[in-house]
Formats: sequence, structure tokens, C-alpha cells
Amino acid sequence: MTHVTFLGTGEMGSALAEAAAHAGYQTTVWNRSAVKAQPLKAAGATVADTVADAVASADLIVVCLFDHASVHDVLDPVARILKGRNVINLTTTSPDGARELAQWAADAVISYLDGGIMATPEMIGTPASTVLYSGARAVFDAHRSLLEKWGTADYFGPDAGMASLYDLALLAGMYAMFAGFFQGAAMVAPAGISATEFADRAVPWLQAVAPSVAEYAAVIDGGDFSVPGQQSLVFSDLTDIVDAGRAQGVNTEVVDAVQRLIQRQIDAGFGAHGFARIFESIRAA
Amino acid sequence: MTHVTFLGTGEMGSALAEAAAHAGYQTTVWNRSAVKAQPLKAAGATVADTVADAVASADLIVVCLFDHASVHDVLDPVARILKGRNVINLTTTSPDGARELAQWAADAVISYLDGGIMATPEMIGTPASTVLYSGARAVFDAHRSLLEKWGTADYFGPDAGMASLYDLALLAGMYAMFAGFFQGAAMVAPAGISATEFADRAVPWLQAVAPSVAEYAAVIDGGDFSVPGQQSLVFSDLTDIVDAGRAQGVNTEVVDAVQRLIQRQIDAGFGAHGFARIFESIRAA
Ligand SMILES: NC(=O)c1ccc[n+]([C@@H]2O[C@H](COP(=O)([O-])OP(=O)(O)OC[C@H]3O[C@@H](n4cnc5c(N)ncnc54)[C@H](OP(=O)(O)O)[C@@H]3O)[C@@H](O)[C@H]2O)c1
Ligand SMILES: NC(=O)c1ccc[n+]([C@@H]2O[C@H](COP(=O)([O-])OP(=O)(O)OC[C@H]3O[C@@H](n4cnc5c(N)ncnc54)[C@H](OP(=O)(O)O)[C@@H]3O)[C@@H](O)[C@H]2O)c1
Repeated sequence: MTHVTFLGTGEMGSALAEAAAHAGYQTTVWNRSAVKAQPLKAAGATVADTVADAVASADLIVVCLFDHASVHDVLDPVARILKGRNVINLTTTSPDGARELAQWAADAVISYLDGGIMATPEMIGTPASTVLYSGARAVFDAHRSLLEKWGTADYFGPDAGMASLYDLALLAGMYAMFAGFFQGAAMVAPAGISATEFADRAVPWLQAVAPSVAEYAAVIDGGDFSVPGQQSLVFSDLTDIVDAGRAQGVNTEVVDAVQRLIQRQIDAGFGAHGFARIFESIRAA
Repeated sequence: MTHVTFLGTGEMGSALAEAAAHAGYQTTVWNRSAVKAQPLKAAGATVADTVADAVASADLIVVCLFDHASVHDVLDPVARILKGRNVINLTTTSPDGARELAQWAADAVISYLDGGIMATPEMIGTPASTVLYSGARAVFDAHRSLLEKWGTADYFGPDAGMASLYDLALLAGMYAMFAGFFQGAAMVAPAGISATEFADRAVPWLQAVAPSVAEYAAVIDGGDFSVPGQQSLVFSDLTDIVDAGRAQGVNTEVVDAVQRLIQRQIDAGFGAHGFARIFESIRAA
């Protein structure tokens, strides 16, 4: 039976460890503040007192700490014990942070798989959860059945930074959407509409229009931004949204930024092209 | 039987008229370029040659033209014929444009209801379609059963500009989301990931995280941005997304704008508060 050790049982580490224990894996947990590891005993996990004890006999070490620095704090002292072992790091790091850890692991002869969790702790183990992985393919293949206990498991190749890059790319869409929602909520607030009332409509609306990005993607991949059947940039240049926001006394910086991307394409002579054209304002030169 | 006349049978006007004809309403249509009205004969509509003919015996006139100016172009010459009649304008206009049309209608003794369509033509008549209305309540009430043939019909009060304002507020979220998606697609593109491949993951991801806006809304309405259980602004200050975007050579203006809103709240001493706090950077002063 695979023996899995979890280093870090904060909100997320606890959810991951609990799913493993419930799935029948031999599970050991360690957390800097021991009190956060204790509740996992009820799920059948063994609580270790030290990192060295925790990793001693593990087939797989799953790390879920606060940030890149805390991963080094915890792993550096046990690097020699980890030699030849499999480590999956699910702590959020930058692409370069993940690459640095992969190099550190290579130097210590540790097989390193990096992961980016696209879920909240409550979502772990549900169909809504996806975890993106990159780095050591052998680790991904060997432990795939465990990874699938947490959600969909996707592998993005040997560059350890790729899962993080993909994660951050998805988060760009999420944070932009959230900020746009806040602008909308602020626009209707002076009319006495609560943010909750606005959200009641905004959630189904955003979910209904999200699939449009696949249509834009098809235009981008096709490379012809002038295909018929699209609303032109000139027609939807966001002037109405910006003006209405200003008229309501609201900060419009986020939509202003979108409008600048549009305007740059109109100025370059592409006003009759569709909205996907702004990809040309954004992509790497 | 209610006799409904549609002025403007472009993509959207045609979808609206077709739904009315199919639902059994006596339906008359007019379009500046007559060729676009002809296909509606098959659905049982009568094609009128002139605007005056079209509106002569209608109980309700539904306008769906290009923009605010085209509504005046079409309605001004028949203002006297329209006296005492009900008009619903579903052309996209600004809040002030809708208010101007409502005033014009009041001067001509026309009952005016303004609408904002939150749907594409294909969605008309499906559960995914919502139309927002404001202005003359009597028109909304008298024709509600027709309006519900097009989708959910929501009334936002007597200010004719309110439906448009609400519409634009929802669109702010949509366009910000689209632009964030484009940034994400541009970030992974140099790694050989197509926009379509990225969209395959981004669509379910955006749909899964959209309901979070309701949680943020609850925090906003509660007025306490420090409630426990939130990720702090300092923790999620978007540095990783911006840095990763720049490292990929991508334009990060939209996420930069979100980051500025966050930074302003951190600088004001609220770095330990949750993300909903940026509403304070956005809302009317
Ligand atoms: N929560 C989410 O929704 C979510 C979603 C996706 C990704 N993630 C990522 O998952 C990781 C963990 O998040 P979380 O929500 O579980 O956070 P959390 O509840 O704050 O847990 C953080 C953990 O890191 C430990 N830690 C911090 N600094 C340390 C150090 N220097 N040495 C040893 N241990 C240290 C903490 O130990 P103590 O208990 O001793 O403080 C705690 O166990 C983060 O990288 C986060 O970005 C979280
Ligand atoms: N399509 C959508 O997904 C969608 C979604 C929500 C809201 N809307 C709104 O619905 C309205 C109509 O959109 P659509 O998609 O149906 O556009 P469309 O297919 O381009 O149709 C525009 C219509 O306006 C007419 N028109 C333009 N200028 C005119 C003028 N000066 N005098 C008389 N007629 C004039 C056109 O007549 P000709 O045929 O003679 O050119 C045509 O019938 C717009 O305000 C749009 O923003 C559309």
C-alpha cells in the first residue's frame, strides 16, 4: 500500500490529506503548529512530530505550505532523507519558483512534480476540482490514482513551471471577472440595488456568457479576426459602459484598460474586426 | 388578439418577431432593407412597406434597431401616429439615451418601456435569455405574457435608464472576464497551447468560480471586509500573475488595473482584509 506523507495541514493540506486517508492510503501528516494536524487522526492519519519522522518511510511526500519560502524552510533540512523519493509540491508558487524548486530537487536527486490547485478546500474530491501538474512525469504516472481522488488531474509536460503558469493564466480571467463584477455592482448601487441582488443576476449571466470565450478562441486560432458574424470593435468599444460608470461616480479603471486594448486595434485600422482582435494588443510581441 | 409590430428585423429583431409570431400574436414587421423582413412571412408575419403602415393598427410597437440615433430616425416621422400607443424599445442605448427617448415619448403622449436584452438572437425564447425593462410599468404589465416568450422579463422601476444601466453593469463583468481570458490565453500561447485548448479549461473554470461573486457580495452588503475565512489582499495581490504575464512578454494592463485597486486598499491599511475590499476602491465616493 502506498504510504503518503503530507507536510502542511492548513486549510488545503488538510483537505488533501483527508481525501487520501478516506481513500484508504496509509497517511501521515505533519504541520508546524501541531494543533492543525490533530483533527486528521479522526480520518485515520498518523500525526508525526517532526518532518524527518513524517517523511522517513513515505513513498510519496505531498507538500502544501504557505509559499515558496516555506517550502524551502521545511524541505531543506531533510533534503538528504528525501534522496531518491517522490515529492509533489502543491504550494502556490510562481513559474520561476517552481522551476527553482525543481532544480533544487534535481540537485538532491529527488523526483519533483509541481501542482497548481484550481479549487477551494471544500471542492477537493468533487467534479468541480482540477489540479494542474508539471515536472516529473514518472511521479504523475505512479500516483495518478491518488491525484484523481482530489479532482481532475492534468499533466502539462516536464517544465515544472508550466502548471503554475497555466494556473496564473486561469486566475487572470477570474480576477478580471471579479473586478468587472465589482464595477457593475458599484454602478447599480446608487440606485439602491444591493451587491447580493446584483450577484443573483450576475452569476447566471457570467456563466451563460463564459462559453463565448471558446468562440473567440476559435477566431484567434483561425488567425482571421475579420470573419463574418462578429460584433465589430467600433460597435462595442465600451464607451457606454465607461460613460455610464463615470455618470454613476464609479471607478472604471478595469474597463478603461479593456477599452484601451480595443482602441489600440481601432487606431491600427481594425475597427471592423471582432472583439477577439484585442488578443493582438495583448499577446507576446 | 394583441397586434404587435416590429420595427427593425436585423438579427435580434427577427428573433423577437419570430418568437411572437410562433406564439400566435398577430405580427407585423418592417425593416429599412425590406429583404431582411421577408423571411418572417414564413413564420406568419405580415410585412409592411412603410413605418406608417406598420404601426397603423398595432397595439404594441417593438423597436429593435441599431442605436439611439436610428430609433429617432424611424420613430420621429410617425410620432403623431403613435400618440396614445405603447412602445417597447429594445435597441441598446445608454441610460441617458433611454431617458431622452422616454422624455421624447412623454412629450408625444406615447407610453415608453425601455429594455436591455441579455441574450444573443439564438438564445431568445430559451431559459438562458433575460430581458431587463424599465420605464412605463403599465406597458410591462399589459404585455408581460409576450415579454416572457423572449425569456425572463425583469422590471426595474420607472426610470427608463435603469434597464440600460443594469445591462451595462452586467456587461462590465463580461468584458472584464473576456479580457482576462485573453491575457491568460496569451500567457500560455508561447508554450504552444492554443487558445481553444486554453478555453476548454477556462470555460468550466470561469463557470465554477463565478458563484464566488455572491460571497463577495455578501461581504460588501455586510459592510465588514475583515470577516474571517477570506484570503487577504496582501496574500493575493496578483504579483505572481503580473510577473508571470510580463515574463511571457504579454500585455498585463487589465490585471494591472485590478492590482492597482488592491494596492490602494493595502496602502490605506486594509491589507489583511479580503478581496471584496476593492469595492471600496471602485464605488461612488
Ligand atoms: N485555500 C485555497 O482555497 C487554496 C486554493 C488553491 C491553492 N491554495 C494554495 O495552497 C497552499 C496552502 O493554502 P492553505 O489555504 O492551506 O493556507 P493555510 O490554511 O494558511 O495554511 C498554510 C500552511 O503553511 C504552513 N506554513 C506557513 N509558513 C510556514 C513555514 N515557514 N514553515 C512551516 N510551515 C509553514 C502553515 O503552518 P502553521 O499552521 O504552523 O501556520 C499552514 O500549515 C497555498 O500556497 C495556497 O496558495 C489554496
Ligand atoms: N445581436 C445580439 O446579440 C444583440 C444582443 C443584445 C442586444 N442587441 C441589440 O439589438 C439591437 C439590434 O441588434 P442586431 O443584432 O439585430 O443588429 P443588426 O442585425 O445589425 O440589425 C440592425 C437593424 O437596425 C436597422 N437600422 C440601422 N440603422 C437604421 C436607420 N438609420 N434607420 C432604420 N433602420 C436602421 C438595420 O436595418 P437595415 O437592415 O436596413 O440595415 C437592421 O434592421 C442593437 O441595438 C443591439 O445592440 C443585439
